[in-house]
Amino acid sequence: MSIVVQKFGGTSVADSTRIKNVANAVIREYNNGNQVVVVVSAMGKTTDYLVKLAGELAENPNHREMDMLLSTGEQVSIALLSMAIQAAGCPAISLLASQIGIITEGVHTKARILDIKTDKMKKHLDEGKIIVAAGFQGVTTDGEITTLGRGGSDTTAVALAAALKADRCDIYTDVDAIYTADPRQVPAASRLDTISYSEMLELARVGAKVLHPRSVETAKQYNVPLRLRSSFNLDDPGTLVIGDDKMEIYRPVTGVAADLKQVRIAVLRVPDQPGIAAKIFSSLAADNISVDMIIQSLEEGNLNNIAFTVNDSDLKGAINVLERVKLDINAGEVVVDGNIAKVSLVGAGMVDRPGIAAGMFEAMAEAGINIKMIATSEIKISCLVDKDQAEEAIRSIHRKFDLDAKVEMQK
Amino acid sequence: MSIVVQKFGGTSVADSTRIKNVANAVIREYNNGNQVVVVVSAMGKTTDYLVKLAGELAENPNHREMDMLLSTGEQVSIALLSMAIQAAGCPAISLLASQIGIITEGVHTKARILDIKTDKMKKHLDEGKIIVAAGFQGVTTDGEITTLGRGGSDTTAVALAAALKADRCDIYTDVDAIYTADPRQVPAASRLDTISYSEMLELARVGAKVLHPRSVETAKQYNVPLRLRSSFNLDDPGTLVIGDDKMEIYRPVTGVAADLKQVRIAVLRVPDQPGIAAKIFSSLAADNISVDMIIQSLEEGNLNNIAFTVNDSDLKGAINVLERVKLDINAGEVVVDGNIAKVSLVGAGMVDRPGIAAGMFEAMAEAGINIKMIATSEIKISCLVDKDQAEEAIRSIHRKFDLDAKVEMQK
Repeated sequence: MSIVVQKFGGTSVADSTRIKNVANAVIREYNNGNQVVVVVSAMGKTTDYLVKLAGELAENPNHREMDMLLSTGEQVSIALLSMAIQAAGCPAISLLASQIGIITEGVHTKARILDIKTDKMKKHLDEGKIIVAAGFQGVTTDGEITTLGRGGSDTTAVALAAALKADRCDIYTDVDAIYTADPRQVPAASRLDTISYSEMLELARVGAKVLHPRSVETAKQYNVPLRLRSSFNLDDPGTLVIGDDKMEIYRPVTGVAADLKQVRIAVLRVPDQPGIAAKIFSSLAADNISVDMIIQSLEEGNLNNIAFTVNDSDLKGAINVLERVKLDINAGEVVVDGNIAKVSLVGAGMVDRPGIAAGMFEAMAEAGINIKMIATSEIKISCLVDKDQAEEAIRSIHRKFDLDAKVEMQK
Repeated sequence: MSIVVQKFGGTSVADSTRIKNVANAVIREYNNGNQVVVVVSAMGKTTDYLVKLAGELAENPNHREMDMLLSTGEQVSIALLSMAIQAAGCPAISLLASQIGIITEGVHTKARILDIKTDKMKKHLDEGKIIVAAGFQGVTTDGEITTLGRGGSDTTAVALAAALKADRCDIYTDVDAIYTADPRQVPAASRLDTISYSEMLELARVGAKVLHPRSVETAKQYNVPLRLRSSFNLDDPGTLVIGDDKMEIYRPVTGVAADLKQVRIAVLRVPDQPGIAAKIFSSLAADNISVDMIIQSLEEGNLNNIAFTVNDSDLKGAINVLERVKLDINAGEVVVDGNIAKVSLVGAGMVDRPGIAAGMFEAMAEAGINIKMIATSEIKISCLVDKDQAEEAIRSIHRKFDLDAKVEMQK
């Protein structure tokens, strides 16, 4: 008997009509003879409402209490979805992270999963029950409630699938598949039937919002077959995300995306001594701030400028850290540029093919777009451009690499 | 250092302004040098909203899932109140029933508390923290979430006070004290400074809604000094509920109240054989239906009529049980009368004083009110009357026993 993990986001359970639709999608898998674990997020705007309430009571609400507060959203959803499944005649049981045993570290509001117990879930599955599991939340070994931060529910689904050795993990969303670019920005974008973990990871990291990079990383690590599919059309197979080794690497580039939520921070005139860069970035890491696209350029004498990007929600925290560190390391000003977008081209095939980067820069030049910063990885090239030029950049690159044509599977 | 338990109901935490007021009331006790545990209910209409959602999804929602759903209401309140207390500069920590260890039996939606762990609470109190505890909820030894049913948050507060051997337990409400009758029905009602557990218990049981009988019973059992006081006027000492042995019994009657939420059920022509009454009432008890005011009257031959009252919310359940049982015991029809009110006179002093019952019946006769059923206990006399005559009955009795005059303490 196959184990299938399904995940539905907040808009899919926004009201009782939609919850009934989700119940139907769940029962469909169950009636196909599968053991089903379904992970749900909080209903529609619940989280926003709770965050607003917290904001009325405290300027900087305690992180532990935020987790206590926000985790109720998923608890409401799992109870209601269980009731809906039961009302349709199928046995179901809702389980909190603390009841399953989704053990996390104690970092509130952005905890990482350390371990998942499977005995309770297996017992219920073997009794023929559908398990309705709360996404986004975890519990420490001390019984403290944590939440997983961004992309939390996707991560819960993939982690449960990994722990249960599920046959597949289906992430239901309001889009029907993964595309070579955001179809709202590039109408000619093509649908992908298959994509590798690494490609998906890079696409997700650079701003394709359909799957959170964290859940893709977990899927890659445990080799969980991940399917992104539409909650509006249950017959559509969507896009399958699988192991790099299972893909024929035939596409030099998979897709292009823009991330508009980054800001660039530069620390000027940093003394060129060993350990200085480490001091900056370990201080940021200590405050749980993720840094992307680091560039160090020689200024004059033995002074460097160090620039990097962070998510705009981390800007305030990053500035706090840097204003402290700059005194410590005897650096100059900290300068922020918020008017940027990170445009990225992703493709597992680019490792073997020269000229991809050159093609990308040509596409930008043809569109008259100035590149502010460049960073590359084995399967990705990212450029910082002015925010208002991001869409034009994407369209130009998309054309340049013939992504406008439907990508055919060449097996 | 004294331990004080405070309890605030749903209207006291209905929005962020009121939550801040509660935070002030809590901090006031804390700044007086007390160790403070505050118990809160769900915000305002939250529970009604959740019940409505459940009703949209299932006609008869599973009780376990209802507990999963409803317990989120208190979880939201404790997180927000903690944040408000912290924002005002005091250390606070919210704790769920599962985190404290409020262990209950497994009867969902009306579980009774079996045990309360105190080690975690004591640790936090000794660290100088205010504990914000979720009312209404419990946890089984298997980690299942339960709720305590009606009067649940009051019961949580009293039970925590008992477990912690608190110096007092203050129940904050929207009334300022306990009165000899409901002031809305009897404008001349007098305020009571002190009342015994037994008197309060009978008053609560007969419809005085200020304190749930269950919480009073627990307070009596563990001798917890209970104070009912106003959340709008923190300087008002309210009414102290204390041990019978600590009271001078000087009042023949303490108060009079009407319960409009009862219905009378009669089972006609029940064979007069041993064990038949037991069969009826043990079947009702098995479905967790509480029965009040049982009267058995001889009909004719060896047939009895058995009449009793139940809470109107239990009517449907009771009828289901009785329609089954009546076939079993070969009885006649089951007849329901919903147009009734139970008017009760309560007073620990009545045990030694003859003529109290007679006085009550006289008061009813003077007001031209017909009595449908009578039941008495050592400190209470209850009469069933027509629902629309309940207020007149209360006023007449109140006058008859000189309760209209302010009851002075006669020590």
